[in-house]
Amino acid sequence: MKTGVVGASGYTGSELVKLLDEHPTFECSLVTSRQHQGETLADLYPQLTDSVDLTFQSPDINELNQCDLLFLAVPHGTSMDIVPEIDRESTKIVDLAGDYRVNDAALFEQAYETKHTDLDNLSEAVYGLVEHNADQIKSASLVANPGCYVTSFLLPMIPLVDEGLVDPPLFVDSKSGISGAGRSPSETTTFMNVNNEVKPYNIGTHRHQTEMSFHLPGDTSLTFVPHVVSAERGIESAIYTQLSPEGRLSQARELIRGVCEDHEGLRYRETPVGMKAVAGTSYCDLSVLGDENRLVVISCLDNLRKGAASQAIQNANLMFDQSVNQGIFKE
Amino acid sequence: MKTGVVGASGYTGSELVKLLDEHPTFECSLVTSRQHQGETLADLYPQLTDSVDLTFQSPDINELNQCDLLFLAVPHGTSMDIVPEIDRESTKIVDLAGDYRVNDAALFEQAYETKHTDLDNLSEAVYGLVEHNADQIKSASLVANPGCYVTSFLLPMIPLVDEGLVDPPLFVDSKSGISGAGRSPSETTTFMNVNNEVKPYNIGTHRHQTEMSFHLPGDTSLTFVPHVVSAERGIESAIYTQLSPEGRLSQARELIRGVCEDHEGLRYRETPVGMKAVAGTSYCDLSVLGDENRLVVISCLDNLRKGAASQAIQNANLMFDQSVNQGIFKE
Amino acid sequence: MKTGVVGASGYTGSELVKLLDEHPTFECSLVTSRQHQGETLADLYPQLTDSVDLTFQSPDINELNQCDLLFLAVPHGTSMDIVPEIDRESTKIVDLAGDYRVNDAALFEQAYETKHTDLDNLSEAVYGLVEHNADQIKSASLVANPGCYVTSFLLPMIPLVDEGLVDPPLFVDSKSGISGAGRSPSETTTFMNVNNEVKPYNIGTHRHQTEMSFHLPGDTSLTFVPHVVSAERGIESAIYTQLSPEGRLSQARELIRGVCEDHEGLRYRETPVGMKAVAGTSYCDLSVLGDENRLVVISCLDNLRKGAASQAIQNANLMFDQSVNQGIFKE
Amino acid sequence: MKTGVVGASGYTGSELVKLLDEHPTFECSLVTSRQHQGETLADLYPQLTDSVDLTFQSPDINELNQCDLLFLAVPHGTSMDIVPEIDRESTKIVDLAGDYRVNDAALFEQAYETKHTDLDNLSEAVYGLVEHNADQIKSASLVANPGCYVTSFLLPMIPLVDEGLVDPPLFVDSKSGISGAGRSPSETTTFMNVNNEVKPYNIGTHRHQTEMSFHLPGDTSLTFVPHVVSAERGIESAIYTQLSPEGRLSQARELIRGVCEDHEGLRYRETPVGMKAVAGTSYCDLSVLGDENRLVVISCLDNLRKGAASQAIQNANLMFDQSVNQGIFKE
Repeated sequence: MKTGVVGASGYTGSELVKLLDEHPTFECSLVTSRQHQGETLADLYPQLTDSVDLTFQSPDINELNQCDLLFLAVPHGTSMDIVPEIDRESTKIVDLAGDYRVNDAALFEQAYETKHTDLDNLSEAVYGLVEHNADQIKSASLVANPGCYVTSFLLPMIPLVDEGLVDPPLFVDSKSGISGAGRSPSETTTFMNVNNEVKPYNIGTHRHQTEMSFHLPGDTSLTFVPHVVSAERGIESAIYTQLSPEGRLSQARELIRGVCEDHEGLRYRETPVGMKAVAGTSYCDLSVLGDENRLVVISCLDNLRKGAASQAIQNANLMFDQSVNQGIFKE
Repeated sequence: MKTGVVGASGYTGSELVKLLDEHPTFECSLVTSRQHQGETLADLYPQLTDSVDLTFQSPDINELNQCDLLFLAVPHGTSMDIVPEIDRESTKIVDLAGDYRVNDAALFEQAYETKHTDLDNLSEAVYGLVEHNADQIKSASLVANPGCYVTSFLLPMIPLVDEGLVDPPLFVDSKSGISGAGRSPSETTTFMNVNNEVKPYNIGTHRHQTEMSFHLPGDTSLTFVPHVVSAERGIESAIYTQLSPEGRLSQARELIRGVCEDHEGLRYRETPVGMKAVAGTSYCDLSVLGDENRLVVISCLDNLRKGAASQAIQNANLMFDQSVNQGIFKE
Repeated sequence: MKTGVVGASGYTGSELVKLLDEHPTFECSLVTSRQHQGETLADLYPQLTDSVDLTFQSPDINELNQCDLLFLAVPHGTSMDIVPEIDRESTKIVDLAGDYRVNDAALFEQAYETKHTDLDNLSEAVYGLVEHNADQIKSASLVANPGCYVTSFLLPMIPLVDEGLVDPPLFVDSKSGISGAGRSPSETTTFMNVNNEVKPYNIGTHRHQTEMSFHLPGDTSLTFVPHVVSAERGIESAIYTQLSPEGRLSQARELIRGVCEDHEGLRYRETPVGMKAVAGTSYCDLSVLGDENRLVVISCLDNLRKGAASQAIQNANLMFDQSVNQGIFKE
Repeated sequence: MKTGVVGASGYTGSELVKLLDEHPTFECSLVTSRQHQGETLADLYPQLTDSVDLTFQSPDINELNQCDLLFLAVPHGTSMDIVPEIDRESTKIVDLAGDYRVNDAALFEQAYETKHTDLDNLSEAVYGLVEHNADQIKSASLVANPGCYVTSFLLPMIPLVDEGLVDPPLFVDSKSGISGAGRSPSETTTFMNVNNEVKPYNIGTHRHQTEMSFHLPGDTSLTFVPHVVSAERGIESAIYTQLSPEGRLSQARELIRGVCEDHEGLRYRETPVGMKAVAGTSYCDLSVLGDENRLVVISCLDNLRKGAASQAIQNANLMFDQSVNQGIFKE
């Protein structure tokens, strides 16, 4: 299957290319980057010298349309310029940007402070949380890959809310490695400002809060507080709420333990782990703690893997009627 | 004032010695360490060579009793062996261990899993949160220096609870630099296990949760989730709760802003800062955020400074009828 | 091929197990650890949960003798207790400890400050520098895997000395990630002591200096200065010397460039790279710089990979008459 | 003494301001920054909130001329635009840029790839290595503060070369924390590129090599290889050379031990230390090792302190006929 990665120079895009390099059926033959055209992936990521041999091209719509599968790893707001140009009869798309994740133009525009210019596709796009939407994903030609923080949140919280075990509001305290801020140098990403740091940002206003709310069942109020921390990759989310009057901690724990048993990519941890236990893996690790009234859910994943590239490949696997974990976990 | 530091080889003890070295009236002339007797402080902390010239002695009760002021920077459970041996008519004590923080033997024994052997002094000890207990501290001869996490929590939350602005439970998500785990090498403290890590531990069971509950007004339920992070020093606590029916976010903010104006050591931050903004300082930085229903309080301090050594000196200043911030902030 | 890893709980041993897990012909079915018997590899390395399912056993000579291939990833001085107990007619050995690297008992004893108790095998053991000793390795039943620092040094310096291009002494300034110090917690390995640190140690007295000298052609004097740095994995060695009267920089450069062309695992870098370019890979990256009189050779590798586990597998590949890079590089 | 810091927003400039804040006679009342005018120092360095209260102004020549003392912490090439505008009868200057360090226009222009436009002052400027040029500095009105790497090199090597103990060439392998690369975000300074990294750069072509050669006695050939490492601050330089035929290691060691005894800011270390032992201090720590033929000198300092701000203040102390270490070390 001829596969292209648009925006392959960033951390997410390059992670995708590395995973595709190991994938048995997706053959990554096209990588694009406006900024780095003519350079090789190894020019940017010297670890890859001699092992991945691909040169960035400027994105060309005709060439993109010759792929069977496209991953869009472009900045938010750019996907909606590309998607309408692609013939999805012959080219399926997994979009890793935020453009098609919130299928409500007004909410999107509020969160992203930009007008959505592709409303038709916005309403058609399927949200690519593979553990919950597998059937829809299988028949989709446009899948919006969930946000990294959002993935860590929804994987445990959709089932817990569905089962009526929690009593909102939810408080979501997330910590992310700095790769989540992207490859461009800025004051936010310098070693001097990140080393030894744990710093909250965009409290209650982060775009992922909108995405969390939108995909959570019912009308469940929540406050999301992301932090940047002194780490390269990984997310740890601690989710706090009260149990509903009928909810029991043991039920919540059994529910999540069961979810983990059903999905190879989720691991239940009696004792919570941290970021390092998932860094460089495609797993999401979950724990449920608390007492008779309160619930603490710990959810860890690698923001570039399960929070982005691995999940994107899981989506593509489903779209091409392959085993969801092909090329991701050994089978 | 002849001053001694018992247990001066640890991170807290040595930080104290460094601060005392700059203090105008407390003269640190006695530092003890059972493990390192005969070695100099600079042997353990080579930065101090030629600038701090002190040699560890084995602690001797007679010598301790010749000091005007003693800081106990010993492991939890050790202070209660020393305190009864000191004549507090002539020697005042600031205890940095946990032994006298929770003036309720049953609670102490539950949290520390050890019997309290000095009940008389336990009931007399004053809790050294200088912003709240200054009057009691001034007339005390035994002050229990608050725990590092606890300080970051109580400084904003005592006033907010006192004013009836919050509707428990409280969720406290704290992140601490690894110096909080002490100087002894262990699996928990190796570079390989800490670098790039954010990891929760002792969820709902940490001793500081007992101390937080005990010193918070009323019967306010809370869950405390500490994390160890890839940083040398610093604590960031994010405290989550709902506003009480009569509480307004603006009130909460004004209250904390006012508290910060009243105390030189507290800084109000419109935009929350992270650990790095307080590392190496004696400040606690506070922010109040949220919406009409929910409150997010961000509190940052340096666990070795305001969370330990600086606060201990502030306590000693008060006990000797000096300006609380002498030797800590420029005046 | 039934494969065992003795001492699989350490960083080197566990890296080996991970690589073996991807290897097409070596089947790792036995992992031993005295200290951790009964625990799983994932208990120590939680990233491996659900992906590598192996339980540490106590090493048993009978079981070891049932393997076709044994890797010894034990502390220095332990291999010489195990090797004589193994029947090498049926079980080949790659030893990652230092016991058989220096085939001269007197030198060994001086460097390791311990008596060598297996002199027969010491004289038979083949030094496993695959780029230089492939023929001997192919017919060996006991291969001593080179030290991590030494590998970074010998790969460029054997050819340069062989060709008479350098005029000793050589100065070797190496920097290593802390994983090189092993898994046991100690003052040397705590985050507080390693973070932000670059520190020389064992100047001129490190055991690897003996190994470097022993395997370098002729009688070439050298001084080795290792440093521990604030990094998890990786070695950068900068090697300084004068060119011999007949030596030219361009010759030296061409020589090393050619060596890199001959070996898939060596990459020539016109612009030198650092540790990060090789971390997590099995490559050694080399550069040659200098001027008309002086030579600077930069050599980078991952101490756990090319400096240990990858090289060990390359050795085993040769011993079993397989392609040297099987399971290490894509072919 | 009215003191100004031109270019106070960078790491060096702000370190200077912090040190001046503790200085008994220099009163820092003017801080300039073109880029940040109107902002406060605490806006850029939030640790300083409430403790240093200074607002960046745009540099104005009239105002600069009203200072008794000016520190120029500006980019290389900018000082030579400012110096000729200052009346040095009334305003003394310590320049922390490279413009006046190499009093030879041709060498300067080659190293800095820019024309020198202030040749008169270039020939008058005194090189501010306080341990060696104290007399000249005392009568100077323009002092060029030595480069950070260069300081670590010259402090031990001038005496060793002066005494004829070494046989060149010298090889200088230096490692620097990333603060040395300045405050501006770039690919070189991101956390993702610096964390876990040790990387050589500008081998044999760094400007500091020119400065090292120029100020070393005689015609002593050397090769300088700087590295950037995963650390905030600190330099460790390992200097390699052969002993001269008449040189003895013991002599070299005694010489440097004596130099350290003569200068409070230099500490001799029998066992070499690393960066952490000097980080945040104004010391340079020196060790001499080797054998009968070869010399290894280890020199560590904090690039922002002894490598920049502390040394600048030591120079100013001398220029104003004060004790060299006033405000730097306790006396």
